Amino acid sequence: MADRTSPPSRPESAPTRSWWGWGTCDQALSDAECSSLAALVPGAAEAALPVPAVASLELPPVRVSAPAALARLVSSAPADRAAHTYGKAFRDVVRALYGEMAAAPDLVARPRDERDVVDLLDWAAGAGVAVVPYGAGSSVVGGVEYRAGDHRGVLSLDLSRLDRVLEVDRVSRAALIQAGAPGPGLESQLRPHGLTLRHFPQSFAFSTLGGWLATRAGGHYATLHTHIDDLVESLRVVTPSGVSQSLRVPGSGAGPSPDRLFLGSEGTLGVITEAWMRLQDRPSHKASASVVFERFPDAVEAVRAIAQSGLHPANCRLLDPGEAALSGIAAGGGSVLVLGVESAHGPVDGRIAELVALARDHGGSPAAQAPASAAGDPSSGDSAAATWRSAFLRMPYVRDGLARMGVISETFETACTWDRFPELYEAVHREVGAAVKKVTGASGLINCRFTHVYPDGPAPYFTVVAPGRRGAEVAMWDEIKAAAMEILGAQGATVTHHHAVGRDHRPGYDRQRPEPFALALRAAKQALDPAGILNPGVLFDAPAA
Amino acid sequence: MADRTSPPSRPESAPTRSWWGWGTCDQALSDAECSSLAALVPGAAEAALPVPAVASLELPPVRVSAPAALARLVSSAPADRAAHTYGKAFRDVVRALYGEMAAAPDLVARPRDERDVVDLLDWAAGAGVAVVPYGAGSSVVGGVEYRAGDHRGVLSLDLSRLDRVLEVDRVSRAALIQAGAPGPGLESQLRPHGLTLRHFPQSFAFSTLGGWLATRAGGHYATLHTHIDDLVESLRVVTPSGVSQSLRVPGSGAGPSPDRLFLGSEGTLGVITEAWMRLQDRPSHKASASVVFERFPDAVEAVRAIAQSGLHPANCRLLDPGEAALSGIAAGGGSVLVLGVESAHGPVDGRIAELVALARDHGGSPAAQAPASAAGDPSSGDSAAATWRSAFLRMPYVRDGLARMGVISETFETACTWDRFPELYEAVHREVGAAVKKVTGASGLINCRFTHVYPDGPAPYFTVVAPGRRGAEVAMWDEIKAAAMEILGAQGATVTHHHAVGRDHRPGYDRQRPEPFALALRAAKQALDPAGILNPGVLFDAPAA
Repeated sequence: MADRTSPPSRPESAPTRSWWGWGTCDQALSDAECSSLAALVPGAAEAALPVPAVASLELPPVRVSAPAALARLVSSAPADRAAHTYGKAFRDVVRALYGEMAAAPDLVARPRDERDVVDLLDWAAGAGVAVVPYGAGSSVVGGVEYRAGDHRGVLSLDLSRLDRVLEVDRVSRAALIQAGAPGPGLESQLRPHGLTLRHFPQSFAFSTLGGWLATRAGGHYATLHTHIDDLVESLRVVTPSGVSQSLRVPGSGAGPSPDRLFLGSEGTLGVITEAWMRLQDRPSHKASASVVFERFPDAVEAVRAIAQSGLHPANCRLLDPGEAALSGIAAGGGSVLVLGVESAHGPVDGRIAELVALARDHGGSPAAQAPASAAGDPSSGDSAAATWRSAFLRMPYVRDGLARMGVISETFETACTWDRFPELYEAVHREVGAAVKKVTGASGLINCRFTHVYPDGPAPYFTVVAPGRRGAEVAMWDEIKAAAMEILGAQGATVTHHHAVGRDHRPGYDRQRPEPFALALRAAKQALDPAGILNPGVLFDAPAA
Repeated sequence: MADRTSPPSRPESAPTRSWWGWGTCDQALSDAECSSLAALVPGAAEAALPVPAVASLELPPVRVSAPAALARLVSSAPADRAAHTYGKAFRDVVRALYGEMAAAPDLVARPRDERDVVDLLDWAAGAGVAVVPYGAGSSVVGGVEYRAGDHRGVLSLDLSRLDRVLEVDRVSRAALIQAGAPGPGLESQLRPHGLTLRHFPQSFAFSTLGGWLATRAGGHYATLHTHIDDLVESLRVVTPSGVSQSLRVPGSGAGPSPDRLFLGSEGTLGVITEAWMRLQDRPSHKASASVVFERFPDAVEAVRAIAQSGLHPANCRLLDPGEAALSGIAAGGGSVLVLGVESAHGPVDGRIAELVALARDHGGSPAAQAPASAAGDPSSGDSAAATWRSAFLRMPYVRDGLARMGVISETFETACTWDRFPELYEAVHREVGAAVKKVTGASGLINCRFTHVYPDGPAPYFTVVAPGRRGAEVAMWDEIKAAAMEILGAQGATVTHHHAVGRDHRPGYDRQRPEPFALALRAAKQALDPAGILNPGVLFDAPAA
């Protein structure tokens, strides 16, 4: 018994998306803000790199054109091509700022429905044109940038028109949602039904359901349902070999899960067009608290105890001393644990108290504990949590500002079991620190926070900030990143917890992927995409000519 | 920091496993018990079918022999071959009772380590011998019975010697366990560490970790971590194309999950030899309660509310009126909901009270609520829960007794979303009821319970009991089962929630598996098992000669 929903209302005057940097233009730092930021990083440039006008960009010539029947879906306008050239990693932003646009796609297509997707893939397969699926373009791993191979052309397949919640099943608490729906758009369509997907990655406003699914995105919940994978009922995927529709059931044990093959396939096996997603009732009760620890190892033990307690907090973000200081939450070398619980069922006071008690048992001092409050009130939660959340959403804009000031500012994330974490943390600081010193001559900054935690281990997220040299920023970061990947590999930690593999993580991924599984996956790729047009270079080498 | 563990102590005089029926011989019903059982089923036979002696069985001639280097791993003894011919479905037990042993494997191999598994697969691939991986043989879907294809011989690969917990990581709460470890054996090795896997399927005593993983078994937890899938950190799998070892991390977003391809592959892609599994602390607090509902639809709504509450009860089994009566819990047409919560962290009184309150809100009457108690006390829990659990473990033995009395007694299970359940329930009773009537001439019994529930739907488990005709029981059940599969398919419900596909569910599975996924899976199979020796006929058609 599903309700058909009405189309989303589109805001009359949405802020303009940045073609080169994060988010929207109105949120970008001004030149003056950039300069004052750089004062915090010794060795930063004196003036901000200018942002090139799209009209000034030198784009490579368009090599292919779509047949007449598809022409109205397709654009070769420079603004479209420029905006679809890169994702939003540091190295993407810097290259865009320098006007390096050799990777620009020939065409950008915006299908209106599944039929259009099928037709575009059919044409591309016949014409030898590579297809790069594109949600809202916030990949930070080179996931939407054509790099390798000798295809006759490159089509960026922008799914932004497939943005509707098609059906809502209130009884089963699920909805059929098109893959191009962006975070805010899908939430606004669910709100009238009292439901929410509650998948809030940092990129929430600039990413889509399809992107989350294709990259196994990590979301709102710090424990339990950490990845979007857990919220999937069924997927609809257009592959060059046919449309795959999995059965919509709450659970199954019938053979290997079809959905799990497409989750994380990053556009290499097919284009996800729709998904039935599990939803939540909108929480009616929320509480948060933050706890300061003098010693970071105590904080880690507290988080482990919480992760193994079965209390399943929605938020459980641990900031190490550097990260806590950078976020403006705690000075003086303390680590801060931000805890949050929420429920649509009943009061959560008891649960937050239990969590705080566990943290206290491990040497933590509760810094502030907001009274449990009705949800929907943006002031709910303690001040550390609010400060952190605001800093969290602002971070990518700050990163762009730093990039304009010649400052290297980037992140990498991983996951490892608890027994390995202390050594991993030390090794990253030691080895990545050495790489930063070698590459930049400065000590730079290496901070860490836990974005998600499991009973068996944390997902640490590292931020690196160091002064770069004009024109060499990308090469410098790539060298630092290579050292980081080396360390993660040596420590048996995953090369990516929720940023996906894309093209940037290929070397580390190839080493960690079991070879028989690689054989199986390549065979699956060959079966579903025999012409090798789908996102070549991601997960697999692009096929040779 | 993992502890090496010592080998399991083997009981001196373990009860003998039944070669033809469920479990151990000492638990089987006597002839007299069979006869008195049959008095409950009008139309049952007057005397129990005798159990044939193994020595009297006519086994087909052995067609192949292992090379000398492998000879000491391999047996062609009739007792071994007979015991490895079938799983333990009703149709398996009946055929065994009738001495139909044409499907007996030529050889049974018991590798001692991974090297042996590799060697056996190498030999089998070269010799064109089919390999059927075998844990403890409690498949109820034809998963361990060679049926189709023209291999030169059939080897049952019995993993029972790989029964050790190899390492325990107390900090991360995980253990490396060999795939042939049976439920009680692995729990007894974990107990000294204060840890437990807490995967307790009905077959717990007669199934292995590897079998659970290969079939995506459903276990102890009625909500949240329903399938063994969720407890896996990493897998080690021997395939004919190499050994696959996935990275041991608590979470990852690096490409499609390698483990999820092997989970549910039912021995067709490789032989799982080891797994790092997530464990639980042994619960220190438990509570249970049961609630009676006059109207079954009210009970269903109560369970939905509980499943969507975020309270995550460990037990949440709903018995419909027939099932409740059969289990001896409630007469008079009531439905019974058995609830249980447990924690290694703290008291659970509040949570069980909340659950009972939710049930009461939906018209339920608490029948008994045991006080929260220390765990480990077998009497903890209310009497309905205890009665049900005891009946639950006894059921397969009763089924065998009924089979000896010519009574059809079998189950099938599924999962569907909440919006579809009322219609599914009605349709199963109507259509399967009609099939039972047509096939047996009697009304028979069709009962239902929920074994697992999700926020978006239940996993209903149906039991069918009806009088058969001597010699025709298997054909009769197959006709009833075909009707059941037809209904599940028409209702969009999965053909199996946790019994796996095997050979028995192939027709329904083939219709529900998305065709592009089938293409991908077949390609993966071809890449990993190019000689097509692994469990032919399961998931895929056996390769043509």
